[in-house]
Amino acid sequence: MKIALAQLNYHIGNFESNTEKIIKHIAEARTNGADLVVFGELCVCGYPSRDFLEFNEFIELCKTSAKKIAEACKGIACIIGLPTANTSAQGKDLYNSAYFIENGKVKAIVNKALLPNYDIFDEYRYFEPSTEFNCIEFKGKRIALTICEDLWNNFENPLYITRPMDTLILQEPDLMINIAASPFSYKHDVERIEILSDNASRYQLPLFYVNNVGAQTELIFDGGSLVIDNTGKLIDEMPYFEEAIAYYDFEDKDAVTYKHHSTLRIEKQSEIDQIHKAIILGIRDYFYKSGFKQAILGLSGGIDSAVVCALAAEALGSENVMAVLLPSIYSSDHSIKDAEDLVKNLGCMYEIIPIKEVTAAFEITLKPQFNNLPFNIAEENIQSRSRAVILMAMCNKFGYILLNTSNKSEAAVGYGTLYGDMCGGISVIGDVYKTQVFELARHINMDKEIIPINSIIKPPSAELRPNQKDTDSLPEYDVLDQIIALYVEGRYASEAIIKKGFDEKTVKKVIRLINISEHKRFQTPPILRVSPKAFGVGRRMPIVGKYLS
Amino acid sequence: MKIALAQLNYHIGNFESNTEKIIKHIAEARTNGADLVVFGELCVCGYPSRDFLEFNEFIELCKTSAKKIAEACKGIACIIGLPTANTSAQGKDLYNSAYFIENGKVKAIVNKALLPNYDIFDEYRYFEPSTEFNCIEFKGKRIALTICEDLWNNFENPLYITRPMDTLILQEPDLMINIAASPFSYKHDVERIEILSDNASRYQLPLFYVNNVGAQTELIFDGGSLVIDNTGKLIDEMPYFEEAIAYYDFEDKDAVTYKHHSTLRIEKQSEIDQIHKAIILGIRDYFYKSGFKQAILGLSGGIDSAVVCALAAEALGSENVMAVLLPSIYSSDHSIKDAEDLVKNLGCMYEIIPIKEVTAAFEITLKPQFNNLPFNIAEENIQSRSRAVILMAMCNKFGYILLNTSNKSEAAVGYGTLYGDMCGGISVIGDVYKTQVFELARHINMDKEIIPINSIIKPPSAELRPNQKDTDSLPEYDVLDQIIALYVEGRYASEAIIKKGFDEKTVKKVIRLINISEHKRFQTPPILRVSPKAFGVGRRMPIVGKYLS
Repeated sequence: MKIALAQLNYHIGNFESNTEKIIKHIAEARTNGADLVVFGELCVCGYPSRDFLEFNEFIELCKTSAKKIAEACKGIACIIGLPTANTSAQGKDLYNSAYFIENGKVKAIVNKALLPNYDIFDEYRYFEPSTEFNCIEFKGKRIALTICEDLWNNFENPLYITRPMDTLILQEPDLMINIAASPFSYKHDVERIEILSDNASRYQLPLFYVNNVGAQTELIFDGGSLVIDNTGKLIDEMPYFEEAIAYYDFEDKDAVTYKHHSTLRIEKQSEIDQIHKAIILGIRDYFYKSGFKQAILGLSGGIDSAVVCALAAEALGSENVMAVLLPSIYSSDHSIKDAEDLVKNLGCMYEIIPIKEVTAAFEITLKPQFNNLPFNIAEENIQSRSRAVILMAMCNKFGYILLNTSNKSEAAVGYGTLYGDMCGGISVIGDVYKTQVFELARHINMDKEIIPINSIIKPPSAELRPNQKDTDSLPEYDVLDQIIALYVEGRYASEAIIKKGFDEKTVKKVIRLINISEHKRFQTPPILRVSPKAFGVGRRMPIVGKYLS
Repeated sequence: MKIALAQLNYHIGNFESNTEKIIKHIAEARTNGADLVVFGELCVCGYPSRDFLEFNEFIELCKTSAKKIAEACKGIACIIGLPTANTSAQGKDLYNSAYFIENGKVKAIVNKALLPNYDIFDEYRYFEPSTEFNCIEFKGKRIALTICEDLWNNFENPLYITRPMDTLILQEPDLMINIAASPFSYKHDVERIEILSDNASRYQLPLFYVNNVGAQTELIFDGGSLVIDNTGKLIDEMPYFEEAIAYYDFEDKDAVTYKHHSTLRIEKQSEIDQIHKAIILGIRDYFYKSGFKQAILGLSGGIDSAVVCALAAEALGSENVMAVLLPSIYSSDHSIKDAEDLVKNLGCMYEIIPIKEVTAAFEITLKPQFNNLPFNIAEENIQSRSRAVILMAMCNKFGYILLNTSNKSEAAVGYGTLYGDMCGGISVIGDVYKTQVFELARHINMDKEIIPINSIIKPPSAELRPNQKDTDSLPEYDVLDQIIALYVEGRYASEAIIKKGFDEKTVKKVIRLINISEHKRFQTPPILRVSPKAFGVGRRMPIVGKYLS
């Protein structure tokens, strides 16, 4: 039989466009002679639909869409994902389901058993885990159909007490199909191939794996659907970060072939290259799916805003990016020149809006209260917040969306001004460490100098007081980033980090800064997630807690 | 035997103070002749500790604290709650556990089976559900000990497929003890008594129920621990919103007595009275637990900021509240007078800081870009954001925490300025509808006029342009609040709301406004939760979704 895998970009709750897209690809697959076309997890409503799933009307609309899809599915079979009602009296109200539709009829329903409920996942919030497992007969073959996490129960340290394939294998299936919504991180593609290959070789069955693609606010789904043979060998890998459909001929357990030019990646992709592509998709989908076209950002002459500006220009077109230089009396001449050079290199729109009259007005206005107290963080933050007011005024007047330019290192230690440089509709590099921002800048400059080299090599500075440097209050970024990663991603105790050779005082200071900045991070924009542990929805910390702070 | 119930206020991750507090109450209970003293769920680390639970060191510190508590528990028994390691290879790494400690030794460990994972709860993120249920023998009696949700599996529409008491009852226990961390909402106390009474009468056992008290950022735990007899009759109710310890003599299933003056509430408490008490505790604990003393807020002369100011003065002392009047050219004379009257009534600190020079500076600064385009929301928001910059500058200079004064109706429909009046460390009335804010104002004024009557009776206005009224862009609040409640709390479809008699256009407009404001709410401060469905951690919505928007 000929199996088509369709990895598509869905829009949460946009039933019209999702349904239309699925039906169009069913037609295309039929035209190309496919017997079965497979779509990704919860493709009907988009993933993650979050608490929309608690609205009965939303579930009804899923059902209506599935009916339309079934009607269009004539002369071919398809697999789609959608939430369905749990009609038993007990347990959660919904299942995370897959419909196997053949010739206009729903022939089988499979419910997900293993519900991820960690990091960014909240599936047990909505779904009851399935306890029944049955293969699907189709064209004389038996399909073991599972949904995403169902194949992810680690064999050495299982997170769940059941494993659907252990039951399904007893029914002697001929092949496995898994539909997924597996979000990107720069470590995840390798892990995914490993665990899926492990499944294929253990059960000695070929595996067809379809992932979604596209960004849903902070979560980026990278596609990269896979076909693995019954020895665990990866035989095809669909493109990453773009929609695609591909066709495979399944004859028997040990006979899967295809005719197209494979997109199997020969070598491991660099993390920076992956991050780059992920962020481009993240920006693009954020704007496209929320119905906006144009971005604005403040350009300081530093590396963070330069990188964000270059990424935005690539994602949205430079004609859709407005860069604003907002010099203060503390801005250095080279910063203005570096920012202007960048704008020229990119060809985006730009404005220069000095903030000195505004900050002077704040100082005069607050003189009776401040009463000649010495310059401190209050005056520093006034500058940062004045810039935010101006950028947001531009948004309100002209319809731009403000891009946040904070990096992960700053976000971690609270080195940023709430309601100042921490503003924005979406945080573009909030999951990219400062050391990675440097790499990203060099990566962007690979073919020609887009980001002025001076922005890359000069010492980072917030330029909120004379001769300020980031290292005045923070350790060097190569040290800082390692400590943050060990604590935030590795959840190491401070003693264990110190044992790795870091200075005790520095480690304790950094961890304390991380823990006392939760109130700031709570109010920051959604952050495009590229790492296994990003700030935001996947990391939930108490604010008034008193642990290591 | 004599049983002491201790409902205490814990601080998340503050092992030193939690342990000390527990040990102190063990000593007190022993002095008062108790055989057993019962503390609340996860009292050792505080609830909810969220992702701190993912840190091994945090779990180790729980163990160390429990050891100290056990050592202090001589000549008496106690029940404490803490996370413990799941030593089985399968499943999540932790259990949500209770230790039964007798004479210095951990005699029994009970693990929670039903893990709430809805609204503000995320317990399946961390814990494996228990599948083993055993009673504890103590002084010739058999105790069926369960943890919070274990008794909450609805009998008509069960959310879970197991019910621990159905197994425990087979072991013929003499009494039930349940330790809880059950957060307040103004509907929850009645519901709690109902479901616990139902358990007591079904199993024909007396029930001793201990809840935690105290606010953990947005979540407010209200105490109100309960003793119910084996017919389901409520025989004692401990105080709400304060720490307490109380003693009960248990002779047999049908013989529970006590000698103290009961705090059993004779009549149903009014919702407004409960909200009032909850918010006072919420403010107080936010400041106390984060180590701050003084609050600041912008006072407009309107009812919202007036109510917040009065609540803050009550919670923190009027000497710790700084009210700032920030008049613009659009502020009416009566607004300034109303604000000044309030400040005089309360006796709090105040400053008048006019914003006209600042807003003028922004307008001059932006003149080249705005180029005489008509006044619109950009200029309105500049005013609101200028106020935020001033208030935050005062925070940075003097160490105040800014209180957010947005109400739930505004938060719902996005009637507020991001980085403007939506700023703050904590949102005080963000879960209180505008119509409830009026009630709260009258409640505060019960004995004397604290909030100027004019602030209560005048038509609400943002005063960001001449003669602006809230009703220019929103329906009347009594209609608006009902629609919001039906949609947000009831998850009604628009058709169902219209069927209840509301105007179709208004309903669709309100629901659309709610859905297109998710990006704003994502960046707002934590909101003190008083309703069954508050904006914030208990309501998780997609931002780029396209459902009803």
